[in-house]
Amino acid sequence: MAEYKDLDRKVIKLAKQIVKMCTEAGSGHPSSALGLTHLTTALMYRVMRYDPKNPWNNGADRLVLSGGHAVPVIYAAYCDLGGVVGFPNRPSELRFDDALTLREGDSVLDGHPNPAVGFPFFDAATGSLGQGLSVAAGVACAARLDGCGKKIFCIIGDGESREGQVSEALDFIIDHKLTAVRAIFNCNGQGQSDYVSPQQSAEALTGKLEAFGFDVKVIDGHNWDEIFGALSADVGEKPIAIVAKTVKGWGVKELQGHTYHGKPLKADQLEQAYADLDAMAGELGVADVEDVPAVSLGVAEPVIRPSGQMVSAGDFAEALTAAGMESALEEKKLSTRRAYGAALAAIGDDERIVALDGDVKNSTFAEIFAGKYPDRYFEGRIGEQNMVSAAVGLAVSGRIPFVSSFAKFLVRAYDQLEMAVITNANMKLCGSHAGVSLAADGPSQMGLPDLSYVRSFAHSKRVDGLPAMRVFCPSDAVSAFKLTEMMANIEGFCYMRTHRPDVDFLYEPDHEFKLGGFSHLRDGEDVAIVASGYMVHVARQAADILAETAGLEASVIDAYSIPLETDEILQIGDDCRGQILVVEDNYIGGIADEVCAAAARSDMGVTVNTLYVQSVPKSAKTTEATLQLVNLTAHDIADACQKMFDRSE
Amino acid sequence: MAEYKDLDRKVIKLAKQIVKMCTEAGSGHPSSALGLTHLTTALMYRVMRYDPKNPWNNGADRLVLSGGHAVPVIYAAYCDLGGVVGFPNRPSELRFDDALTLREGDSVLDGHPNPAVGFPFFDAATGSLGQGLSVAAGVACAARLDGCGKKIFCIIGDGESREGQVSEALDFIIDHKLTAVRAIFNCNGQGQSDYVSPQQSAEALTGKLEAFGFDVKVIDGHNWDEIFGALSADVGEKPIAIVAKTVKGWGVKELQGHTYHGKPLKADQLEQAYADLDAMAGELGVADVEDVPAVSLGVAEPVIRPSGQMVSAGDFAEALTAAGMESALEEKKLSTRRAYGAALAAIGDDERIVALDGDVKNSTFAEIFAGKYPDRYFEGRIGEQNMVSAAVGLAVSGRIPFVSSFAKFLVRAYDQLEMAVITNANMKLCGSHAGVSLAADGPSQMGLPDLSYVRSFAHSKRVDGLPAMRVFCPSDAVSAFKLTEMMANIEGFCYMRTHRPDVDFLYEPDHEFKLGGFSHLRDGEDVAIVASGYMVHVARQAADILAETAGLEASVIDAYSIPLETDEILQIGDDCRGQILVVEDNYIGGIADEVCAAAARSDMGVTVNTLYVQSVPKSAKTTEATLQLVNLTAHDIADACQKMFDRSE
Repeated sequence: MAEYKDLDRKVIKLAKQIVKMCTEAGSGHPSSALGLTHLTTALMYRVMRYDPKNPWNNGADRLVLSGGHAVPVIYAAYCDLGGVVGFPNRPSELRFDDALTLREGDSVLDGHPNPAVGFPFFDAATGSLGQGLSVAAGVACAARLDGCGKKIFCIIGDGESREGQVSEALDFIIDHKLTAVRAIFNCNGQGQSDYVSPQQSAEALTGKLEAFGFDVKVIDGHNWDEIFGALSADVGEKPIAIVAKTVKGWGVKELQGHTYHGKPLKADQLEQAYADLDAMAGELGVADVEDVPAVSLGVAEPVIRPSGQMVSAGDFAEALTAAGMESALEEKKLSTRRAYGAALAAIGDDERIVALDGDVKNSTFAEIFAGKYPDRYFEGRIGEQNMVSAAVGLAVSGRIPFVSSFAKFLVRAYDQLEMAVITNANMKLCGSHAGVSLAADGPSQMGLPDLSYVRSFAHSKRVDGLPAMRVFCPSDAVSAFKLTEMMANIEGFCYMRTHRPDVDFLYEPDHEFKLGGFSHLRDGEDVAIVASGYMVHVARQAADILAETAGLEASVIDAYSIPLETDEILQIGDDCRGQILVVEDNYIGGIADEVCAAAARSDMGVTVNTLYVQSVPKSAKTTEATLQLVNLTAHDIADACQKMFDRSE
Repeated sequence: MAEYKDLDRKVIKLAKQIVKMCTEAGSGHPSSALGLTHLTTALMYRVMRYDPKNPWNNGADRLVLSGGHAVPVIYAAYCDLGGVVGFPNRPSELRFDDALTLREGDSVLDGHPNPAVGFPFFDAATGSLGQGLSVAAGVACAARLDGCGKKIFCIIGDGESREGQVSEALDFIIDHKLTAVRAIFNCNGQGQSDYVSPQQSAEALTGKLEAFGFDVKVIDGHNWDEIFGALSADVGEKPIAIVAKTVKGWGVKELQGHTYHGKPLKADQLEQAYADLDAMAGELGVADVEDVPAVSLGVAEPVIRPSGQMVSAGDFAEALTAAGMESALEEKKLSTRRAYGAALAAIGDDERIVALDGDVKNSTFAEIFAGKYPDRYFEGRIGEQNMVSAAVGLAVSGRIPFVSSFAKFLVRAYDQLEMAVITNANMKLCGSHAGVSLAADGPSQMGLPDLSYVRSFAHSKRVDGLPAMRVFCPSDAVSAFKLTEMMANIEGFCYMRTHRPDVDFLYEPDHEFKLGGFSHLRDGEDVAIVASGYMVHVARQAADILAETAGLEASVIDAYSIPLETDEILQIGDDCRGQILVVEDNYIGGIADEVCAAAARSDMGVTVNTLYVQSVPKSAKTTEATLQLVNLTAHDIADACQKMFDRSE
């Protein structure tokens, strides 16, 4: 139809660029991209209220490309639109042929959507499938807090919709009435290695989406009337989901075979592809139409978001009292997870702080925040993957999300965590009930390999030079409280692990905790014990035993932060006859490796032995009984120290 | 009704025991357990074809308790039935009061279902929610291969059904027509911290299950007629799902409040609980009925499963030829992922071998196996969590599952991996496209923190003394081929990482690879370079550069196995002026920490420096270009070696 001629021409133009840029790159997914030419053109040239020249306008509509491998179509369009890339302090404008830099080492056009390298049209990195709809939901949560009416469009592949996280996101969207989200399912019927399962057919998806509670529009994804009808439909009570039937490899015959998933055309196949597209242009009656810069996008008003300088949790005693934990001040004893809850509620005074939890808020103590700031609390239910990705959506929208669950259950979202790291998302995870001190519930509830995973990121840098991860292992209520406050003030991804048991206060409320730091809790000269979290208390008992039974004086170091300042720790070890014992209540890969790597690198000749959970644990009724099962009692530690001392004699 | 009097009496008996055992343990989830008394009694005393005296009968019906925290009801019944626990070579029989050992350090009644500690009624450890239905599906896959008609009952909580993995499992069950599974949703309307979302109400679940393609029976979970009607219903084309409305805390008023999730009654509350249950017995007309050992279970015939001694992949050249890779033999160049595919197809001759892949079988090369043994290949689609848990179900049924996807995407199933480790499941994961050598696709597709996570388990032992994890990092096609074969012959969980690029053969086909071993590929005396996987090739180039440009001779070690035999590696380092450089193409936490820990523990004075991926990578067109971006080229390695040498002078 005449009214769509400019768009038809645009589709042909973008399609040619898509095949060309992928061939130029020598890799990429042109067939997936081609299937989205109409939907993308409708969104980016007509429907979305945004300005390609100002991608940082926080009031504009957003697009999340969950099936990130189709990104060449977005790049082609954004280059065609002269979109701005880079960073607010050093923006630059793309030209049409910049699309041909796809996947180059110095190009902002990464293989999959990646805002961190300077492509701000996207909020979050995608490409590991099934995560985008959760991100979109998080952006919608933030938009509601902002009082902003923007729409968040999200394109999800049909094969991708098999990922369970997508169903978690659908439930979350309904739970929280996030009608700003438009979930667009791209049903081309082809996966990477095969046709898509009938369970993910357009028909099956439609039935499922309706059962989840969506208003479903089924359309031909290459028919302008149907596309605009669905994209512009008014939303009622139910959020809108669009099931778009598309043709993978649209317009280019060679790319329509199902073996062409992640494969570009060879250079000598390009001519035929262009010919196919010219023929298509002929059919559409636009072969002789000049390219029209078909932009008449709506204007979006920026919103004013809460801002601030330092987040403060205020006075420790006051915060505990406000959290109903005043008795702990008398007893000088409180679990780190409770102190986290008190701190979270205390920093909630700052409107940037939001919290999410996965149906364990009465165990992680996020419930105090939830009760105090219900608008800024988003219950994630038992769906950790969606919860973490939704937090990414909140983080990229200027909020500071604190996400809590058992450390064990957060493992469910480790891939989502990595995508958050790639995104440079400023968010904080708190894994409670870490380590074996959980005891009676058994290994299915204990966080044991968590430190190894998060530490892995802690020694790599983001593009801006910041550590990709900061890890905190508080040993008492004061440190948990202060480090929670510190996390709010550190840019980037932070992970904290808290423990179940109540433990003695080790610090005065005015103690200052340092990023990367540690505390030298007890000074000795015979051996140094480095521990973190719950094990600091067991290490102190061990030091008492050593003093009482063997007359040995042990230094005790609370290594509460990773990356750890290991130089000073090695120095303390050197002063302790060169003997360091590191003690962990998790599997290997945490602070022990932190100290070992430093010792191995240095030429000080410090010897480092390690005690950690060397057997898959089981339940025992008490923490003490569990520590016995895994040989991590104070006596075990004292024995190990004694042996090191004897050997050093 | 009269016919159910014995069952009613049984329910009261079990209910009393449940509250008592949890109070005795001082923890546990009595309210969840009470809600399942009727369903459990129906299953364990009437419906299931099994013999409590022989839990190792492989032809018997199975029960998977996905919501593992409700396990006290199972323990109470199994103790009442005098069920056998322990291991085949040292079985023992439970008595009724053994239920009171719940959660003790030396009890087989772990806090959550845990067959590894000696409770063989269960196949797999559960407790981290949402995984059981996938395990049940895997058991059903195995039953089909066995030609066994057993049923696999699986009980899933309503709140738990929010986990996306449950939807993946539902799709998998339909895809593979696993009508042997009976998915029973326990709808009590209460989660841990709140009421269950309306999205998981009995009504909503029913609608969803129908949309997924199930034959749904909605029942009152405390009504015998409805229970038996649903449990005994004949299955047609569609698998059966049962939505059972239950009362959390059934029979005990105090436990019916929604704050009672993970909390036992106090000792002084027990009398009232018994009184409640006695009153209930009166209502049911069974107050004066003697306990009836109401067992009349069906007999299950054991099945004969494939067995064998050593699995063999046969001759390397023959296997490559059979896999259509004969040209590699000429070129002496092949990617490790292709060699994995060739080996998997070759060992498939053994009927114990099964394979699963998540829609990337044409990238991981599991497709060769899939084509050759379609009955033993289970396409997991894009749902890694379900895929890994389904593999657990196959493993505990006597098969040896090989599960492949990109290393990056297997992170999605890390919690499932840990549950497999707790289960002692004999299964193998292969993560392909590991490390930065993937290049152009960018960080969303690269496996970077994977080694840190899997290594974390490698230094802990299972109950039977075996390492909880073995990790393999082959550097060339021969080692990938041989190590794949080796994995099939090692009991327990193994993880292999393969790479995308084609690489030169480094080994002769008759090379013998050792568990925990390494290869000393090049002998030098100035510095030792330890590497694995793709980086071995870059390390060899670095050694060439050092020899040519600086006249330095570097040892090159291929550290292909974790746990690593570090003593000998330190010795080699000691012979190289005490200088070791470890090189990895992943984030920190792999072989570098393996060597550092050994050096720090020893008193040899060996210095270990490390090169690894120290920045979050981005796309570049080639592997070489990506290595440049992250400072891991052969020149970077040579420079680092030169500096170590200079310092050692």
